[in-house]
Amino acid sequence: MEVELKEMLADLQSLKQSLPDPSHRDSLDKLESRLEHLTNLAKAVPVRRSKVKDMSVEVVDSNPYSRLMALQRMGIVENYERIREFSVAIVGIGGVGSVAAEMLTRCGIGRLLLYDYDKVELANMNRLFFRPDQVGMTKTDAAVQTLSDINPDVVLESYTLNITTVQGFDTFMSSLENKSFRPSKQGSGVDLVLSCVDNYEARMAVNQACNELGQTWLESGVSEDAVSGHIQLLIPGETACFACAPPLVVASGVDERTLKREGVCAASLPTTMGVVAGLLVQNTLKFLLGFGQVSPYLGYNSLKDFFPTMQMKPNPQCSNAACLERQKEYILAKPARDAAAKAKLEAEAPEEGPLHDDNEWNISVVDDSGLVDGFDSKSSDALPEGLTRELPNADEFCKLPTEAPTTDSDDLEELQRQLEAINSA
Amino acid sequence: MEVELKEMLADLQSLKQSLPDPSHRDSLDKLESRLEHLTNLAKAVPVRRSKVKDMSVEVVDSNPYSRLMALQRMGIVENYERIREFSVAIVGIGGVGSVAAEMLTRCGIGRLLLYDYDKVELANMNRLFFRPDQVGMTKTDAAVQTLSDINPDVVLESYTLNITTVQGFDTFMSSLENKSFRPSKQGSGVDLVLSCVDNYEARMAVNQACNELGQTWLESGVSEDAVSGHIQLLIPGETACFACAPPLVVASGVDERTLKREGVCAASLPTTMGVVAGLLVQNTLKFLLGFGQVSPYLGYNSLKDFFPTMQMKPNPQCSNAACLERQKEYILAKPARDAAAKAKLEAEAPEEGPLHDDNEWNISVVDDSGLVDGFDSKSSDALPEGLTRELPNADEFCKLPTEAPTTDSDDLEELQRQLEAINSA
Repeated sequence: MEVELKEMLADLQSLKQSLPDPSHRDSLDKLESRLEHLTNLAKAVPVRRSKVKDMSVEVVDSNPYSRLMALQRMGIVENYERIREFSVAIVGIGGVGSVAAEMLTRCGIGRLLLYDYDKVELANMNRLFFRPDQVGMTKTDAAVQTLSDINPDVVLESYTLNITTVQGFDTFMSSLENKSFRPSKQGSGVDLVLSCVDNYEARMAVNQACNELGQTWLESGVSEDAVSGHIQLLIPGETACFACAPPLVVASGVDERTLKREGVCAASLPTTMGVVAGLLVQNTLKFLLGFGQVSPYLGYNSLKDFFPTMQMKPNPQCSNAACLERQKEYILAKPARDAAAKAKLEAEAPEEGPLHDDNEWNISVVDDSGLVDGFDSKSSDALPEGLTRELPNADEFCKLPTEAPTTDSDDLEELQRQLEAINSA
Repeated sequence: MEVELKEMLADLQSLKQSLPDPSHRDSLDKLESRLEHLTNLAKAVPVRRSKVKDMSVEVVDSNPYSRLMALQRMGIVENYERIREFSVAIVGIGGVGSVAAEMLTRCGIGRLLLYDYDKVELANMNRLFFRPDQVGMTKTDAAVQTLSDINPDVVLESYTLNITTVQGFDTFMSSLENKSFRPSKQGSGVDLVLSCVDNYEARMAVNQACNELGQTWLESGVSEDAVSGHIQLLIPGETACFACAPPLVVASGVDERTLKREGVCAASLPTTMGVVAGLLVQNTLKFLLGFGQVSPYLGYNSLKDFFPTMQMKPNPQCSNAACLERQKEYILAKPARDAAAKAKLEAEAPEEGPLHDDNEWNISVVDDSGLVDGFDSKSSDALPEGLTRELPNADEFCKLPTEAPTTDSDDLEELQRQLEAINSA
């Protein structure tokens, strides 16, 4: 608006000079002073924060990242600035999703993909984030407006669509697959999907997309009575998917859509949604930046301040075909995963040499470097004299099923020899 | 701005009519169209949400309270609209206090009192609430600006002062005592104080004020490494006050002020602060509106998503004189409290009459109406045959010390008789 006012002032001044009649001077002067006043008003509209090229650790009031980079000095995060490489997709920009988006924006996340088709209403004002002056805008537009003001360093992609429609789902899938932000990235184009939707259908759409892409995601939800919520980590093939254990309402055959009638409004609180968004993004940061432990499932019962946790394995009878595929891949990849875990353990093993230089009591420790898995896998001599194994050890046992389908008689004989060797050890 | 533009348009149109020379028409037309364009731009600048007289349960998009009033229909809160009667003081409008203020504002709290002396900096942008365009404003001014836009129904009082100075503390005390908002209120003028400060000195000032006023408060804090936090309920005389159990750093004799050096910046995260603010305001709502259980202490360890709880009794050797006074009052008020609890229990007792109309197994329940405290206090017949009491029961025991200081020889003999009667029962 400042630019328009300046142009207008220039027009007015040239008009003033071209007018020969001094009788209109007064009116024109009055117009000019009004215009100057308006220009000053428009100038009072604040300027935006400028982009920052690198995250600085400098402790000055003008550094928007100083308190985040301090996580490195405090020994919590190894390399905070890596956050700029990550892309997070947030599906549903309501009471939880909008706050999650604001938190990630203030943390300086690299890229946010935002999905919603709803508009901001006054009835949303009991939750954080949206302002009354945004009523009528789409939630995605309003979010981009607020978030880009807060932190212009974040790349924002806004998708005003319903992921449960055929076309919406297609666009959702291709946006997740797009790797233009970080072409070198393995897998899909995003590092994590956060589901912040309020209905079963949309959750099943996120579940389908993530199962197809092998994409890890975090699901979140708040109860209709507003006083409890949860977050859940879903790694396709490794943990239960959303279809592995259907919610009770679906299991009992009731169509969930009939439960959300027009005029029947669920309760909601900014507190419960703020807590759930905070737990969701905290686990997102732990997942992305590799600190602490990511919770597989965390509930929040606000009436008693009770936080239940649990873990859910995938259901081998899951109705979702993509989930079954991911489960198969996960099982097939077990030997490689075990080898990697073992290599990591060995790399992290403490340096040789005594921990205490003086050994007043002559305490010595028995060498157990060959006992990583609880059993010695290299030589049978490690078993104490007089003891034999009744069963093959865990590693041997796991190899059997994968070898079994290809066995012919020779292999069976070889297997027989191996088992006898183990039993006679 | 819209008004100014309209006036200017009127001026311009009258000028246009008074100009006889058509050669200047073009310039004037151009000016006019520019002005109309500006007026449209200004119209796009949103209007504020208007005040709402009563909280409506009506489920329409334009009702900012529909999702909160739904808490009644869901059976969580008995009378949500009572929230408009309550005053909450928030000390410290930083990462936790500002979010707590926004949550309470969106919940439609009656009155908020905000205390801070700091200014908004870009270095605060890694936490929720403040915007880059507010940099340089005092936190109290910036908060009032944002909160009054969000909900004009809330009465906001802003105190730009440091409560640890003599004058600041006096103003703090008198603002808490002021009852102009609800003259009929018992005790102080506020219903709850939320401490959201970041240092020991300020916590001790809040503690002192609340002990003097007998004012219940909720304390909150976030660790310097940004990954844990807590909230704690403090009821003077009933629970430990902040001086009853001094933090470790003070107990060991280190001056805490030396720990906060210039240039040494603590880490902070919007997630941890959002969770702590959410837990703090959720417990505030439970306390004010009487639902669920208010947690005496709730910790948040974000690395493991662990939430420790505990309870702390007041320290009879507390160094705070006002705390000791409140402890004395609390003990003296025990009989009245017990009587009230008993009356409440009796009032809530279920209606007489069988729960099950048919009694197939002839099960009967022994009358225990005289056993409210675990012992029959009316007649000694209630004890099963063959059992005697070794000690007087809890009620008798409590009466003894308060009677003791006034005893003369007659009273002592009477006391002796009472004890013998009890022992021989």
